[in-house]
Amino acid sequence: MKEKIIEVSIDLFGKHGFTETSIQDIVDGLGVTKGTFYYYFKSKEELLMEIHLRYIEDLLMSQREIIEKTKTAEARLFDMVYMLMKHIEGQGQSARVFFREMQHLNEEHLKDIFKKRDAFRLNMNQVIADGVGSGEFREDLDVNIVTLAILGAVNWSYHWFDPKGALDEKAVSTIYIDFMLNGLKKA
Amino acid sequence: MKEKIIEVSIDLFGKHGFTETSIQDIVDGLGVTKGTFYYYFKSKEELLMEIHLRYIEDLLMSQREIIEKTKTAEARLFDMVYMLMKHIEGQGQSARVFFREMQHLNEEHLKDIFKKRDAFRLNMNQVIADGVGSGEFREDLDVNIVTLAILGAVNWSYHWFDPKGALDEKAVSTIYIDFMLNGLKKA
Repeated sequence: MKEKIIEVSIDLFGKHGFTETSIQDIVDGLGVTKGTFYYYFKSKEELLMEIHLRYIEDLLMSQREIIEKTKTAEARLFDMVYMLMKHIEGQGQSARVFFREMQHLNEEHLKDIFKKRDAFRLNMNQVIADGVGSGEFREDLDVNIVTLAILGAVNWSYHWFDPKGALDEKAVSTIYIDFMLNGLKKA
Repeated sequence: MKEKIIEVSIDLFGKHGFTETSIQDIVDGLGVTKGTFYYYFKSKEELLMEIHLRYIEDLLMSQREIIEKTKTAEARLFDMVYMLMKHIEGQGQSARVFFREMQHLNEEHLKDIFKKRDAFRLNMNQVIADGVGSGEFREDLDVNIVTLAILGAVNWSYHWFDPKGALDEKAVSTIYIDFMLNGLKKA
């Protein structure tokens, strides 16, 4: 039931917004009573935190796997971009809730999420810094800003990426990486 | 007074969210009555639409100026990225409201904003396509996806860009453009 509450809530928060969705809406969608909701969650905010935690922890775990599995900075970067795109493809509504509804977490929860989000960014930062160290990547670019540009381009795609569109998440990731590694300018 | 209502509202919507801000909060912040509010706006939603319209129309105007003033695709691209970054620097709270609160516009208004937002994207698309045509840019990259990647990286910076940080909007734009034009890979 806990999983079902989370699933239905992601859908409702994604479609109508966190503030606009009541606990009543959530339990109505499941045909259960509010008592059932409160058995699993103290509040709507606590449920939102659980959604946020799962989202970011899932990404961190996938990121660790990539770092273990791949060797070159280029391969790691490609795998991370592709992993994020797959996440947006498969969990578009979660991504929407994650990015848009973060403001509704309480301060303590927000701090926790920011810490994990920063960890994700710093891991990617490290991959790029390693690539600079190994001679794969240019040493004259600001690694922090480049990391933010890459994450920005990928995260932003939850605004427009359509899994039913002409290009799937692998095709988009391939173009992204080609563009980011080799640039737009004609050699 | 209309300008003041808009200014205070952007600040309140940015800080607390559209749903969480009442018309009472807005007029309290100005020391006027609700009557004054309704003299200028039919509803809170209409005020939100005015904020959205100003934001996107301002961007479209600046974009037109850039296309008139500059000649090469590279210069146009740099100026557009820099203009967007300056906008985020100078109007961070507006950017936040623009991107985050769009969901609260009614369907008709949303359609209008999407049309203008698409126009902005298509203009940038055209700049890149022109650069491909003139031989400045590579012809083997998907122009639509590259445009979305650039806009994504720039738009995302409203999440992290700190005007009081070590790098100002010109420095960030310069790194962005160098990265986007020349890529991360060591030649």
